[in-house]
Amino acid sequence: MDPRLLRLLDDASADSLVSADPGLVRMLTGHAGEIAFGPSPFQLPAIVVAGRASAAQLVCAIDEAPEADHVHSYPGFVVTALDPVGGARAALRSALGVAGPGRILVDAAHVPLALADELPEAAEAAPEALSKACAVKTDSEVAAVEAALRLCEAGHLAARTATAEGATELELWSAATAAVERAAGGRTTMMADLVSGPRTAEVGGAPGTRRLGPSDLVLCDLVPRLDGIWGDSCATWVVETPPPGAEEMHRSCRSALTAGLDALRPGVLAGDVDAVVRGAVRGDGFDYPHHTGHGIGFHWHEEPRIVPAGTAVLEPGMVIALEPGAYRDGLGVRVECVAVVTEHEARLLSRHPLGLDLLDRGTAA
Amino acid sequence: MDPRLLRLLDDASADSLVSADPGLVRMLTGHAGEIAFGPSPFQLPAIVVAGRASAAQLVCAIDEAPEADHVHSYPGFVVTALDPVGGARAALRSALGVAGPGRILVDAAHVPLALADELPEAAEAAPEALSKACAVKTDSEVAAVEAALRLCEAGHLAARTATAEGATELELWSAATAAVERAAGGRTTMMADLVSGPRTAEVGGAPGTRRLGPSDLVLCDLVPRLDGIWGDSCATWVVETPPPGAEEMHRSCRSALTAGLDALRPGVLAGDVDAVVRGAVRGDGFDYPHHTGHGIGFHWHEEPRIVPAGTAVLEPGMVIALEPGAYRDGLGVRVECVAVVTEHEARLLSRHPLGLDLLDRGTAA
Repeated sequence: MDPRLLRLLDDASADSLVSADPGLVRMLTGHAGEIAFGPSPFQLPAIVVAGRASAAQLVCAIDEAPEADHVHSYPGFVVTALDPVGGARAALRSALGVAGPGRILVDAAHVPLALADELPEAAEAAPEALSKACAVKTDSEVAAVEAALRLCEAGHLAARTATAEGATELELWSAATAAVERAAGGRTTMMADLVSGPRTAEVGGAPGTRRLGPSDLVLCDLVPRLDGIWGDSCATWVVETPPPGAEEMHRSCRSALTAGLDALRPGVLAGDVDAVVRGAVRGDGFDYPHHTGHGIGFHWHEEPRIVPAGTAVLEPGMVIALEPGAYRDGLGVRVECVAVVTEHEARLLSRHPLGLDLLDRGTAA
Repeated sequence: MDPRLLRLLDDASADSLVSADPGLVRMLTGHAGEIAFGPSPFQLPAIVVAGRASAAQLVCAIDEAPEADHVHSYPGFVVTALDPVGGARAALRSALGVAGPGRILVDAAHVPLALADELPEAAEAAPEALSKACAVKTDSEVAAVEAALRLCEAGHLAARTATAEGATELELWSAATAAVERAAGGRTTMMADLVSGPRTAEVGGAPGTRRLGPSDLVLCDLVPRLDGIWGDSCATWVVETPPPGAEEMHRSCRSALTAGLDALRPGVLAGDVDAVVRGAVRGDGFDYPHHTGHGIGFHWHEEPRIVPAGTAVLEPGMVIALEPGAYRDGLGVRVECVAVVTEHEARLLSRHPLGLDLLDRGTAA
């Protein structure tokens, strides 16, 4: 049994967990369902039922996974009348039967209300506890994050290569997505900020039709999902000539990132890492309004959240993105790398280029 | 008050509707939230509360929409402790207060279980009734579907232009997405099938690394979402020389599509349209295992479902995609167009090329 699940159940005095969160489904069953097109009229989200007594059970439409020992499926894409709720109810009932009796903990933020009748007297799981259960990764999960980070690297290189005066943000984005999907060998869900010029001061945003000028910064934050596992990455570069102040801002962010990576050690409080990184940027006269970082892997933002009052205590196996920034009127810089906490110093997993100079492809290492 | 909502509430003897379905939220509030990255740790899905007594109320994180007369928002992307469930509960309570008393109909397939306490004694809405409520579009909604179909056209032209012996499916896909996003002026959520050669016989699938041969078919089904409204489109073309049987299959599908478009008239039963189109393809000795078509707009598949036992009766304003196909061992063809039912003949809205020949850009018109 997954020790993370055991701890979660012990802490809640429960015997099984029911969740429709794609991150927990991936962690406990290995299943990576489609998430990119909103709710489906043919099926409910995939659900995991994980108890003490048996392997984790998957509840999903048969299009997602064929019926098997640990898979309870129901009809999905059919030409007859649709009844995904009825199908999911019956499949959930079957899965609960395998998971065995006892107190059920339910992830009520993600499980649909339509399944309430199958879960009478279930206790609501605390969202923070669920997120913390995802924080420590196994070696193979760390390798999966690294694979997603290789996509980040491909995307950043392509976006830099497409950068030129007169190019649009969307042209950089198209180059990045094409490179990421080529590297992945298939369609890839990817969150992103990709903004330029004065838009960089707004912290983030989706790529648009704005054309690059020679003194524009490009802020690019790529967050791809590969086999249900997320990577994360940010860099800021200049088209040709850095605008006044950009070099100082970039130097400050790079230095704060290095300090943050140095601070990622077992036993350290997440809030203390935040203080180190945020304090370094503020010491240089800059600031950022967002988190310093976050766990990454099963979700694009999970525990340990690296925020001022972050309560998580770092442990080996936690995979953490740090992303200090500096924003002013008309100018914004952010750099971001992912590292895994070990028993000693953190091991950097990111390899995308961080340089302000378009062609300076040195990484944070 | 939206007459579609009124009919839904009357049929269910209810006074208000609560839904977290992005399609119903878009229809009743105009809000088009982000759906492409799975659940957010910062917020629950946007919710509409629509009663008889007032305008539709929107419940969402403040990142999605600022607080306003009809918007009940809660904190989203914060550096403090996360409590999207608590925030959504309070905002929903506030919205329910504005919507007024009476019997609540709840879209239990989409509303999270975490909101159950705010909705005691609510009646579960029938999913089919909710889908049927979305079937008839206003003139401006039809125009929004047409705008999404212009993206389809851009994508199809680009995918055809990228088609050449030795190109990969992913290269055609990258060309299509770049063209769609350029036409949209920004990032665009898009479902798709894009398969080639023997993969076309599998009905659909995501683009992969397969390289095109000179006698390969390319089956391309693009389903983009623009401002919360979906378009849909399919065509099948050949790289150079049609493989044996492909021309007959394509001719059969084109002819069945024309017959189906002719059958789209008020008062006709959806199942009868299915019989006309499916029967035409079968009469030619071919067949397809999927639906003949579906409503399109608020969802990528909604009523009227054009299936063998389809119970919807066509009305003016219904926007319908028809997509007959023909599949054999190693070979698949499908063509798809979208039309709006009027008081007389259906008006074709699609303009993407349907020809089997790569350069034959004639449409279904």
